Amino acid sequence: MFQDVHVMIFIGFGFLMMFLKRYGFSSVGINFLIAALCLQWAILVNGFFHLKEGLILVDLTALLGADFTAAAVLISFGVLLGKTTPTQLIILALIEVPVFAINEVIGRTYFGAIDMGDSMFVHVFGAYFGLAASLMLYRRDVSTEKEGSSYQSDMYAMIGTVFLWLYWPSFNAGAAPGDDQHRGIINTYISLIACCVTTFALSSVLDKNKKFDMVHVQNSTLAGGVAVGTAADLMIHPWGAALLGILAALISVSGYVYITPLLASRLRIHDTCGVHNLHGLPGILAAIAGAVAAALASEATYGPSLYEIFPARIPVEGSPELARLQEALPGLEGGSGLTGSSQALFQLLTLVVTLVISIAGGIVSGFILRLSPLSVLKTEELYEDEKWWIMETEDDEGHKGSVTIPMADNGAR
Amino acid sequence: MFQDVHVMIFIGFGFLMMFLKRYGFSSVGINFLIAALCLQWAILVNGFFHLKEGLILVDLTALLGADFTAAAVLISFGVLLGKTTPTQLIILALIEVPVFAINEVIGRTYFGAIDMGDSMFVHVFGAYFGLAASLMLYRRDVSTEKEGSSYQSDMYAMIGTVFLWLYWPSFNAGAAPGDDQHRGIINTYISLIACCVTTFALSSVLDKNKKFDMVHVQNSTLAGGVAVGTAADLMIHPWGAALLGILAALISVSGYVYITPLLASRLRIHDTCGVHNLHGLPGILAAIAGAVAAALASEATYGPSLYEIFPARIPVEGSPELARLQEALPGLEGGSGLTGSSQALFQLLTLVVTLVISIAGGIVSGFILRLSPLSVLKTEELYEDEKWWIMETEDDEGHKGSVTIPMADNGAR
Amino acid sequence: MFQDVHVMIFIGFGFLMMFLKRYGFSSVGINFLIAALCLQWAILVNGFFHLKEGLILVDLTALLGADFTAAAVLISFGVLLGKTTPTQLIILALIEVPVFAINEVIGRTYFGAIDMGDSMFVHVFGAYFGLAASLMLYRRDVSTEKEGSSYQSDMYAMIGTVFLWLYWPSFNAGAAPGDDQHRGIINTYISLIACCVTTFALSSVLDKNKKFDMVHVQNSTLAGGVAVGTAADLMIHPWGAALLGILAALISVSGYVYITPLLASRLRIHDTCGVHNLHGLPGILAAIAGAVAAALASEATYGPSLYEIFPARIPVEGSPELARLQEALPGLEGGSGLTGSSQALFQLLTLVVTLVISIAGGIVSGFILRLSPLSVLKTEELYEDEKWWIMETEDDEGHKGSVTIPMADNGAR
Repeated sequence: MFQDVHVMIFIGFGFLMMFLKRYGFSSVGINFLIAALCLQWAILVNGFFHLKEGLILVDLTALLGADFTAAAVLISFGVLLGKTTPTQLIILALIEVPVFAINEVIGRTYFGAIDMGDSMFVHVFGAYFGLAASLMLYRRDVSTEKEGSSYQSDMYAMIGTVFLWLYWPSFNAGAAPGDDQHRGIINTYISLIACCVTTFALSSVLDKNKKFDMVHVQNSTLAGGVAVGTAADLMIHPWGAALLGILAALISVSGYVYITPLLASRLRIHDTCGVHNLHGLPGILAAIAGAVAAALASEATYGPSLYEIFPARIPVEGSPELARLQEALPGLEGGSGLTGSSQALFQLLTLVVTLVISIAGGIVSGFILRLSPLSVLKTEELYEDEKWWIMETEDDEGHKGSVTIPMADNGAR
Repeated sequence: MFQDVHVMIFIGFGFLMMFLKRYGFSSVGINFLIAALCLQWAILVNGFFHLKEGLILVDLTALLGADFTAAAVLISFGVLLGKTTPTQLIILALIEVPVFAINEVIGRTYFGAIDMGDSMFVHVFGAYFGLAASLMLYRRDVSTEKEGSSYQSDMYAMIGTVFLWLYWPSFNAGAAPGDDQHRGIINTYISLIACCVTTFALSSVLDKNKKFDMVHVQNSTLAGGVAVGTAADLMIHPWGAALLGILAALISVSGYVYITPLLASRLRIHDTCGVHNLHGLPGILAAIAGAVAAALASEATYGPSLYEIFPARIPVEGSPELARLQEALPGLEGGSGLTGSSQALFQLLTLVVTLVISIAGGIVSGFILRLSPLSVLKTEELYEDEKWWIMETEDDEGHKGSVTIPMADNGAR
Repeated sequence: MFQDVHVMIFIGFGFLMMFLKRYGFSSVGINFLIAALCLQWAILVNGFFHLKEGLILVDLTALLGADFTAAAVLISFGVLLGKTTPTQLIILALIEVPVFAINEVIGRTYFGAIDMGDSMFVHVFGAYFGLAASLMLYRRDVSTEKEGSSYQSDMYAMIGTVFLWLYWPSFNAGAAPGDDQHRGIINTYISLIACCVTTFALSSVLDKNKKFDMVHVQNSTLAGGVAVGTAADLMIHPWGAALLGILAALISVSGYVYITPLLASRLRIHDTCGVHNLHGLPGILAAIAGAVAAALASEATYGPSLYEIFPARIPVEGSPELARLQEALPGLEGGSGLTGSSQALFQLLTLVVTLVISIAGGIVSGFILRLSPLSVLKTEELYEDEKWWIMETEDDEGHKGSVTIPMADNGAR
């Protein structure tokens, strides 16, 4: 499971972002750098929040937690892809990792929120952090012709998509115990297949020539994995999972067609990968679905495992309900005694707090990143590998410039 | 194991079919759509055939079964690759999945056939279903210059090949219990390495310039996995597995060199991916090898596990042999009391029935697909992504047409 | 774990070597052939050295051992990439596999050396075997313009890099039992992330334009996995693992910048993939680190597991120390009673013997490969797929030659 998540972070995110036609080295390479950096930093920061006898414990759980943290940073990276320097991204990562850790501690420890697939803590957080930073970094010349994809770059991106799609069940269920894990895998799986089919249908319907759009296939097919994340280990039934997948596809494809252009033109928020449609909106859907499922959860359907899944619902110390439960579950310690609807409220509160903290953190980060020595990209350096990578120049055939020769090489030898 | 099979279906089949130079989006994208659709449909259809108390059980076994069903449909898709519309493929999938389920129930339940790696139920079935449909969909203009591969597209296909080759042991052994699984992995592994080496040798020998042919390397190296499938969990010894691998390579490479052209010219069966050579013929070899191994299987060599592997060989209720066995295996219920040679006959009968059902199903499907509102492709739309996908057109350098610009873009910037 | 190593051999090594712009088919294809051949041959040869009752046992452990052997041969292949015929490589593999097995038996059985991640037995051995062979095969025309990479080929290589990086913990810990495995995974993981970040920093610092170099990113990021290999399962602490990763990156990047050019110009050793910097030097670092860790290992820190990890340190039969230990570990048999520092000396002796045997083996192999009927490549056939693969020629647009048409095809349609 851990290995699957690891593959998602480095192969999945790395290759998914390779869709830009002249930014392939940077997409996979800088993704590699930032992910490795985040893993180190997240092990330290998360470890600090969960000290064991004053020491930072480094075990597989810590590594899995670091992978999830890195995922949030890479989602923010997706918003800014091609528009920042590696130095800016490193600073962004250094800021985002502790803010991420604080937000997760507030949600999980203080509000008792559950979020098995981290749809709120990773997807919503990463997306709105990145979008807020993008607002601060807005520039008029942000859309250039290099922002598009090429036939080859779209193929690489599909490698990322398919690996993400395949391993998403492990992402959503990786940290779950026993039966919950089984349920998490199956719910995610069902949501993803429903989402995939709906995305293809919708992508074709919304195009004037009834063609499929690679952008939707690469991204919206995955939205079902996000949308089912919070409730993945709950008893949402196969139809519930399928419904979430279908809704996620609807929201995500519509987002690409209608909302992303609006964000850019009206709100000055430019979103290179359309992260809002893959992680932002489906993450909010997941949070709402999680709240509904939490409100409906009762001991009648879940049995005693209810208190394993929702620790905040364990009755308070000294109450007769706790005494009754302790007969079946000896050793159970008292909790907050939340009802289903209060659990649901705390779920929604966690969503709101996550939105507030991520947007505030993104704005502060963006403000720092636009300071003068950091913000140096010229228009022609946007979405362009040549600024960052040594490229062989063998331009002996009259092609245009050093940037393009390695590719021209492909075509002209 | 389940995850490995899942990777094979989406990465393996998806990328293997990307060898067509202008059909990469469709190969991986429509493979994605059809696979996701089949998974849903197969969960429902298979679930209907194996109802538990009137309900369809959705667990990991059901998902694994759905993956195998999807594999059969994708094999048929390989025959028709580039020559059908997505709508036609969806209809094909809707028909093929229930026919597949019926055939498997007949073979496994009624004939007591064993087929650990599903070489008959998936490979033979999928291949001949597709070939029969291809016969019905034959058109004179089926071979165009777009049918070939390019340097880049062959590389993508190799990604598919290598993933299929690596995970094939899991495909053949995924559903096997304990010791049988271990044997299934090792037999498949040995067959595949023997097949790989033989394919390279033969590919070079059969070429007039002694060069390797990418088509063989991409496909025939995998034939060993098919050929060992039915008998993968039986005691066929390492030399038996290696022999099957070598025979599979011989059949498969010869098939590409001699049989595929004949099928197209004489029988009007056009086979885009050469599915007949990778799945059809090696699948028949697997069925025969399985029958031989079944005929030779005896309690002397297998011990009591014989009756676990071949449930139909358990002696009939009330017989003294059953009473003797029940001393060692309490709780064993009476079976059909088949001898080794009757088991072998039922294995061969299953092969024949699979061929008949798949060909009949393919002909009916093909007949439906060629009906007038469905069959709409023009010659220039064969093997062509541009018909189905939105493509960026940045043709500012005088290249030929909108279709080709995303690639031209690669070369001309 | 076994499956992970298998993926590394075929996907990792295969794709990593695809960086040559006109040698992609051969890199992945011949890697495939040689790996499959080595697996067969290694199962036989290793089996011969570990006969069980006169029989060669084929189980998952044997397959894992064969994968490690294949890795050594593929590392040597990396040195010679593009400069040999497939026939030469097959002969090289046939010679190298038994020499590898002899060296490993000497080190492990006679010297009692430990090397969990096989940094000495696989990486050092494979690298210096290949480098010695390369010395014998030196030719003046070894550097041609085809030796470089293209934009596309570098992307394929990154697929290999990322898969190797992800699965390296399994390579180093795959054969370890229980707790040691857990430690092996975490130490390797930490070394790799430290190495990745250091590589990026150093690659940029050493370039005059402060750009990243793809060669370093593809290769040096992995050196941490090699450098931590021997000591991966020892108690080297997270800081020790990180230090090894940082040193590995320093050595490896400096090697590419300073040492590889020197080797080629002064010593006439041409190293296509820079294997010396990824496997050779970091492997020597690993051996030294392993010796230091072995010298420091004591029962005080390791407890009785010390004798599980270092069997040669078990006290000799009849000694009072053994009697004391047998109270805690009944059934323990007497060993060689080495002290920590003698274990360290035997570790270093194993390194020296590995260097001697691999260099001698490589020189003999290289001498055989340069014999007249085997050595046939012309200058223009170096690093060139067209010599070995059937390629479609559709040169209808005036491009240069048959070699290049499949790529030209990409650009000119």
